[in-house]
This record gives sequence, C-alpha cells and structure tokens, in this order.
Amino acid sequence: MDNHLKKPKIYHVDIIAKSHLFTIESVALEFSNGVQRVYERMKPSQRDVVMIVPIKNNQLLLIREYSAGIEDYELGFPKGLINPNEGLIEAANRELMEEIGFGAQCITFLKRLSMSPSYFSSTTNIVIAQELYPNRLLGDEPEPLSVVQWPVHHMLKLLDEPDFCEARNVSALFLTHAYFN
Amino acid sequence: MDNHLKKPKIYHVDIIAKSHLFTIESVALEFSNGVQRVYERMKPSQRDVVMIVPIKNNQLLLIREYSAGIEDYELGFPKGLINPNEGLIEAANRELMEEIGFGAQCITFLKRLSMSPSYFSSTTNIVIAQELYPNRLLGDEPEPLSVVQWPVHHMLKLLDEPDFCEARNVSALFLTHAYFN
Repeated sequence: MDNHLKKPKIYHVDIIAKSHLFTIESVALEFSNGVQRVYERMKPSQRDVVMIVPIKNNQLLLIREYSAGIEDYELGFPKGLINPNEGLIEAANRELMEEIGFGAQCITFLKRLSMSPSYFSSTTNIVIAQELYPNRLLGDEPEPLSVVQWPVHHMLKLLDEPDFCEARNVSALFLTHAYFN
Repeated sequence: MDNHLKKPKIYHVDIIAKSHLFTIESVALEFSNGVQRVYERMKPSQRDVVMIVPIKNNQLLLIREYSAGIEDYELGFPKGLINPNEGLIEAANRELMEEIGFGAQCITFLKRLSMSPSYFSSTTNIVIAQELYPNRLLGDEPEPLSVVQWPVHHMLKLLDEPDFCEARNVSALFLTHAYFN
C-alpha cells in the first residue's frame, strides 16, 4: 500500500478570524505536483478529549446533554477536554465524577479518533471505565445531566435511538462491543 | 427513558467571527432551571455530507487524501457535500465518480451521523455503494487521490491502520460490517 505520499509544502499560515473559542487559520500550500491551494482550518488544538464508556452492573451509563449546535438534546457517553498536565486516566476519572457521579477502579484505553481532519486536529481518546464507585465532583454543567442506563447485552440496539448518532459515540459503542465479543 | 427534557430558550444569536468557510455564532440561552449561558457554535449548515463505502470484487475502496487540519494524509472512504437540489443517491454517485472513477448501480443508506453537535449541526449520511461501473468525473482535487483496496472479509483489520481513525470512517466501517454480518 502507498504509505509514501509526499506531503504538500505549507508556505504560509495566517489567522483570519477569531472568537473566544475558535481561531480560524488560512493555510497556503503547494502539493508535490506543483498545484497551489489555500485552505481554511481551525488552529490546531493543544488539548485532547477523553470519551468514557462507563459500565456498572452490566449497564452502560450514558447522558442526555443539550447541544447548542443542533439546538437539541443528544444521547452519548460522558466526555471532556483533558486539562493541561492531566493524564488520560486522571481526566477520564474526573469527567466521570463530574458528569455521572462515579469514579472508576479500572480504565481501559480503546482507540484514538480524529474528527474531520481536513479542518480540525482534535483527538478523542475512547476508554472503557469499570469497577465504578460513587464519587461526585462539581462540574460546570448548567443543569443536572440526565443519566441513562442501557443493558450491555444488547448495546448495539442503541443505534436505533434517534438521538444517539454522534460519530464518536457510535464508534465508541462499536469499539466497546468488539472489545467484549 | 427521559425523552422529555425541556429545551433551553435561545434569546439571542449573533455572528461574532467569519471567514470564507466558517461563520461563528454566539448563542445566548436560558436553561429551564433559570441558568443562563452564552455558547459559541458554527452557524448551522444547510448542506449535508454523504460518505460512501464502495465495494468492488469483495474489496472496499478507500482513498488517501491530504488533511490540512492534521497536516498529514488520512485513509478513509470517499465523501463530499451534497449540492443544493441534489439527492443523496445522486450526490453519492457524483462523489464516487469524482474521487475514485466509478458509478454505482446499487446504493444502500445505512445511517445519519452527527459530529460534535455542541458546536456543529452538520450531518453525514453513510451509504454502501455496490455494482460499480467505470465512470470518471473531474473533481476539484489538487492531486490524484491514491485509491486503496481492502478485502471485505477482514474489513475490521482496517482499525489497526494508524491513519484510519476518523470517527465517521470508523463508524461507517462498523456499520458496513454489521450490515453484512
């Protein structure tokens, strides 16, 4: 398989728009065949995300959280940004405590996922959390998150729920299913 | 299950930054418990994406394409924006012709996926394309796309490829595997 594609040469990166949360860059580059293009992308992020698949008493624990991008609630696994100087396991435990009120004795890394890498550099690390114990930390959620239990033994039926359709959640579900089967 | 969460009331949406490709909005809203927040999001898009899993002679057909967000090549399925007034099947066929030089007699819809709906409204429709026939359309790619064949009968081994990790691609792979098994 051709793993030896020659990368384009980036000759200019400019910030062209900026808000509190987002910085948009233009990237001028030349492909190895001489074709030049200017692309736009989000400024590469220094912080990864962790998404946690928590399992307790043979039930997956999910949350329903409001998503401003679609102006609706979404069903998915707890997730959050990894803080600077925080390890992956530590961040997974903190997010679990903040979002569903549990810590985990056992956290298993499954896979790193990218998301639309033409525009974003962000990476989401999928982990499974088991051997949960009650421990609540105060998060920054504007309202209490609604926790949903779903039986592990028919986890793929989650795909029939219309509000369970985010690509990282769907990947995490299948990766968890593959891990146990 | 609690499907009856009361949505926050959005009382103001402002454009706060803009480039050629991206428009960033601030969204001021009040949750049903009275908590107020201002979020940022990408202005909701009117155009969906189609991602196509093409199968020919028991091989999946993938492409390696440069992604400016990660400054590297990514292995994934052909995809693209659905044009205004274009149907899903039509768009899938056009993208296939532009990206790998085939049309498809048989296109099967699998699932709609969202992507980080806290910030984006974009939807990606996953389809399988079968009964392919040669037909090339000129796309807008800056360099010829490298086409990669992968045997259907061990498709999940794709997950071991380090450059196959985009969440929609991983979801599409598992959805295709579930469809045939």
